[in-house]
Parts: sequence; structure tokens; C-alpha cells
Amino acid sequence: MIHPSAIVSSRARLGVGVRIGAFSIVHDNVDLGDGCEIGSHCEIGHPSARSGGRPLVIGASSLVRSHSVFYEGSTFGERLVTGHRVTVREGTEAGVNLQIGTLGDIQGTCRIGDYVRFHSNVHIGQHSTVGSFVWIFPYVVLTNDPHPPSEVMRGVTLEDYVAVATMSLVLPGVRIGRGALVGAHSSVSRDVDVDTVVAGAPAKPVCPTADIKLRDGSGQPAYPWRRHFHRGYPDAVVEAWLAEFGHGKAAPTKDHE
Amino acid sequence: MIHPSAIVSSRARLGVGVRIGAFSIVHDNVDLGDGCEIGSHCEIGHPSARSGGRPLVIGASSLVRSHSVFYEGSTFGERLVTGHRVTVREGTEAGVNLQIGTLGDIQGTCRIGDYVRFHSNVHIGQHSTVGSFVWIFPYVVLTNDPHPPSEVMRGVTLEDYVAVATMSLVLPGVRIGRGALVGAHSSVSRDVDVDTVVAGAPAKPVCPTADIKLRDGSGQPAYPWRRHFHRGYPDAVVEAWLAEFGHGKAAPTKDHE
Amino acid sequence: MIHPSAIVSSRARLGVGVRIGAFSIVHDNVDLGDGCEIGSHCEIGHPSARSGGRPLVIGASSLVRSHSVFYEGSTFGERLVTGHRVTVREGTEAGVNLQIGTLGDIQGTCRIGDYVRFHSNVHIGQHSTVGSFVWIFPYVVLTNDPHPPSEVMRGVTLEDYVAVATMSLVLPGVRIGRGALVGAHSSVSRDVDVDTVVAGAPAKPVCPTADIKLRDGSGQPAYPWRRHFHRGYPDAVVEAWLAEFGHGKAAPTKDHE
Repeated sequence: MIHPSAIVSSRARLGVGVRIGAFSIVHDNVDLGDGCEIGSHCEIGHPSARSGGRPLVIGASSLVRSHSVFYEGSTFGERLVTGHRVTVREGTEAGVNLQIGTLGDIQGTCRIGDYVRFHSNVHIGQHSTVGSFVWIFPYVVLTNDPHPPSEVMRGVTLEDYVAVATMSLVLPGVRIGRGALVGAHSSVSRDVDVDTVVAGAPAKPVCPTADIKLRDGSGQPAYPWRRHFHRGYPDAVVEAWLAEFGHGKAAPTKDHE
Repeated sequence: MIHPSAIVSSRARLGVGVRIGAFSIVHDNVDLGDGCEIGSHCEIGHPSARSGGRPLVIGASSLVRSHSVFYEGSTFGERLVTGHRVTVREGTEAGVNLQIGTLGDIQGTCRIGDYVRFHSNVHIGQHSTVGSFVWIFPYVVLTNDPHPPSEVMRGVTLEDYVAVATMSLVLPGVRIGRGALVGAHSSVSRDVDVDTVVAGAPAKPVCPTADIKLRDGSGQPAYPWRRHFHRGYPDAVVEAWLAEFGHGKAAPTKDHE
Repeated sequence: MIHPSAIVSSRARLGVGVRIGAFSIVHDNVDLGDGCEIGSHCEIGHPSARSGGRPLVIGASSLVRSHSVFYEGSTFGERLVTGHRVTVREGTEAGVNLQIGTLGDIQGTCRIGDYVRFHSNVHIGQHSTVGSFVWIFPYVVLTNDPHPPSEVMRGVTLEDYVAVATMSLVLPGVRIGRGALVGAHSSVSRDVDVDTVVAGAPAKPVCPTADIKLRDGSGQPAYPWRRHFHRGYPDAVVEAWLAEFGHGKAAPTKDHE
């Protein structure tokens, strides 16, 4: 299960059935859960003076794709899935089922909830706090320094179910409320209310998320997305969402016509 | 021609004179044309359940630079050239002489014409359709989901000779007409007419492309760029362009003064 | 000091105590100063017809992190530090203590001063001129072609102590004056005066940099940042800065209250 060309420390703790790809390196201070798969050309558990001696812990059934680099001193729940060329620095604490797309750059010292999905090429600055079921789309940056360069760090907070669309920037210290949507190519400089769409640079409130309709001919609302988008989530989660919205019955959006 | 450290499947079909760099991996379901060169640290033909069993086909005389990852299930014409760390997923169909710059991320299930040039760090979303002689500059993203996340996919269409300048975003379902130019740092939310410059967020029409003059003191129009920019195109293509514009004679742009 | 899996040319000139990581390649035309460390999976001194036969020179005590690619034909002063997956093309001339963050893409044919810091994922176009003590933050692009594609190249000039904040674009030929600050998510199309804040797309002057206060409760000005931010700079440099501002004494910003 370990490719003969891989370099795996005898001190690393590997669960049952762990697979390590060709030309990958696994350092000493690493704990990989059962069934984890590491792709080729990775470096896992890169030593760091900033890790405080803590290990890199990756939960069971995770998949780290090729050319990725993880430092020691971070913890991931089960079923982490990454794209290629992901970088994760020290001090990241993430829940279960995190997805990090290709080229993702997680700068460390941040908190990430469960079932979070980062698409390709996102940059999560230090001191970011990301809730559960959050979506971040390509080329989004979460910043932290209000007057760079400085020693003042004000991380961003994204509450549960927030979605930040492509090529948007969230400025230091901003809090984005539960279920809010940041439109593409926006620069968010002020806090965002729950279930609100903001857009522009600087981003301004546009409408409640419920006003956006699905462009599939159904006339149904596009948000909360958990009403209609279930791909990749476990059955128990989807069932809870369906219950929240009346077990999938079509909402009567035109009942007064 | 195959570096001793490379891992090349005996089932891969390699043309005459193929070169494979150090620490690279070539999987089973791969067809590399004559004279192809694969740099170091690549993974070529990454297996995928989504490939439908189709191979990765790369045409003759192609060059894939180091640290790149290509999945099985895509096809490239002759003379593909990539930068470093390119990622190409399943279901990409591209013509001849495609260039993909360093860090390019081609998400798959897209169509790309001939002589297309992607500069560094472009992101081509699934279901994109890119014509021939298109230029895409750094940090451009072609999107596809009108209300992310959802199952509704509306790819972008770029017609022949379109140029999209640096750090621009093309929103889902947008069609950009032949020869149009998207200015830098724009967000294109509506269709763009042929030979038109658009700019801004949201992008608005600025002028016909012919109104932009070359800043080389010549007073000549900068567009269509094929009038003056020929580097890297084959002689037959350049001759056709010269014929289109009167064999390179200076256009009488000020003949009424 | 050289990992057994590394491939190091016998023609490369390695100083005392140089370390080369696993699965890395060092080509012929390379000169690494004493104490340099190259991480894993790198390619150092990639041959190039465009190098004019000049070597890649990296000064003493430098650190190049994993998966990076440097072409021959560039020169770096002592104490270069890079993140992961950095790409540097031919013809880059940089001073001492340059930092290049993860995913940085230095396109070559550019000049960079001393103590410059590029954060993650910056793109430095050809013909850029960057002074000393400059900061460039994530996803910033320095461009060079005023009407792409063309053969007209007009590089950007950043004078000493300039800071360009996240996801900003500097358009071709622009000169940014000493100590100026470009706000996040800006597109700079005109020259910027010294010690001036610009922001927006297109970027417009906002205020003198001295008007921005540190958000640490001190009431002190945030710029020039060398007044308060010293991390990672050598003692002699910091002492000169402290002398410039009265040896660190608090400026009497509220003395008329």
C-alpha cells in the first residue's frame, strides 16, 4: 500500500489500509487514520518550529491528492478530500468532510467547521473562522491585516451556510452572517446580515437570498441551497434538510396568483 | 528518453522519441504522440471513474512542463505546450497548438479550439466552450454555476479571437462575440457583441476594438491583433492574416486628415 | 546533506553546507551559496535557450521550499526565502532577503531590490521593476502589455516601500511612488504619488498614507509601516528606521486635546 519510492518515517502513525503514492514523503510527527490515501509527490507533516510539537492528524478515509504539502500541527476530521497542490500550514483545526480544491492555500491558525467546501485556488488567511456547510468558490481570499504590513491580525468569520462566490475578497475582521451569499468579484468590507446577498466593491446589500430563483425552470428559490443541492452530503444530513423544508415538497411560491 | 526514475506503465502507448522526465508517472490509459516531452514530477493519465474509460490522448510534438497532472479521458491536438503545475481533468477536448500557462486549472468537460493561449493561472470551469485563436490572460476565471452551489451548469462561450484580459471573470452562460476584448479586472455578466471592448464590474461596452491604437508610435489599430501580432503562429496562418489586411501594408487610418 | 534520491549535476557549484531535498533536481548551470537549502520535489536551474548561457545564482543562506522551479539565467542575493511551488523564469535580478510566497510566479526579465516580500500567489510580469522594502500581497498581478496580445511591453515600476494589497492589479507602464499604498481589489491605471493611498477600479487617490491609523488602540499612524513593523528585518535596518522616527518614541498625535 506504500509505494516503494515513497519515503515514510517509521515514527509516523499509519492506520489500517493507508496508501502512500509514489515519490511522497511522510515525516515523523504524523497520524493518518484508517483508509487514508495520499497521492504522489506529496510532503506530509513538514516539520515546523511553529507547530508547538503537535502532530499532523488526518482523520480516517481521507484523500490527499498529488503534490500537496501539509505541515505538522494541524488536525482534520474524517473524510478530508483535497485537490492537487494544496498547502496547509500549522495550526489549522478542521471538522469532518472538508474539501479543499486544487491549489488551495490554508495559511494556518484557523478554525473550520464540518462539511466545508473550498473550490480551487482559495486562500484562507491566518485567524479565519469558518463555520459548517460553508462554500468558498475559486480565487476567493480571506484576509486578516487591516493595514498591511502590521502585527494587527483581525481574522474573518464566516457563519454556517455562507457562500462566497468566485474572485471575491473578504476584508479583515468582517463577519458574514449565516446563509449569506457574497456575489462574484466582490470586496466585502462590512459585516453581512444573515440570509442576505451582497455584491460589488465595496459590497452592498442586494436582496434577501430567498429572492434568487433557481434557473432551472422550476420557479423555486435557489437559497437556502440545502433545499435543492445534496450532492456529496450524507443521507442523515440530507434528510434533516428535507425535513426542514417539508420533505422536499415544492414550496408554494406562486400560491397567490 | 525515459528517465530511469520515471514510472511508466507498460500499457501506455508512447510514440517515437517520447521523453519522460525524472520522478514522473505515466499511467496505463495514455496515448502520447511522436516526439512528446513530459517534464519532471508529472502525473499523466491519472485514473478516474469519470473518464468513461477513455484514454488521455496528447498529440505529437507536445511539451508538458514539470509538476503537471493530466487525468485520463481528455484529448489534445498536436503541439500542446504547458507551463508548470497545470491540472487538466476529464473530458477536455482541445485542438492543435493549445498553450496552457503555469498553474492553469482546466476543470474538464469543455471544448477548446485551435491555437488557443491561456496565460498563467487561468481557471476554465466545466462546460466552457472556447473558440480558436482565443487569448486568456492571468487570473481569469470562466464560471458555470449561476447560483452556487447548484446542479444548474451554464458554461461560458468565447468565440474565435476573443481576448480576456488579466483578472477578469466571465459569469455563467455568457457568450462573448468574435474578436471582442474584455478589459482587465472586469466581471462580464451579459453577452458581448463581436469586436467590442467591454470593461468594468459589471462590464459595459466601451468602444469598438478598432478604436484602440497600438502604443508603439505607429498609429495603427491594436485590434484585430492578428494584424500585427504573429509570434508563434505557423507561416500559413500568418499569411492568411496578412492577406486579410492587405499583405501587411499600413492601413490608411488618417487618410481624411 | 544531499538526499540520496536527489539528482544533482556534478557541474553545479554548491557552497559549503548546501542541502538538497528528496526528489529534487539540480541542473548544470547553477551556483548555490553556502548554507542554501532546497526543499523536496524542486527543479533548480531548468535549462533555457533564453538564459543566454547565464547561470542561476542563489546567494548564501537561502531557503527554497518544495515543488519550486527556477530557470537558469537569474540572480538572487543572500537569504532568499520562498514558499512552495514558486516559479522563477530567466532574467530575474533580485537583491538580498527577497521573500516569495507559495505559488509565486516571477515571469523573468525583471529587477527586484532588497528586502522585498511577495506574499502567496503573486504574479510579476516581465519587465517589472520593484524597489526595496516593497510588499506585495496575495493574488496581485503586475502586468506589462497595454493591448494584449502585442509585442509592446511596458513594465510596471514600484518604488521603495510601496505596498500593494490583496487582489489588486497594476496596469502596464504605471509607476507607483515611494511609500504609496494600493488598497485591496484595486486596478491601478495611472501613476500614483508618493505616500498616497489609492483604491478602486480604476484606482483613485483616497488620502495620504499618514491619515491611516493603526487599529491597535494606540492612535499611531499605520504608515510608514517601518515605524512599527519590524519582524524579520535585520537590526541595522530597524535601528535606522527607529532613528528616522525619533527612536521609537510615541508620536504626539493627540497633544492638542
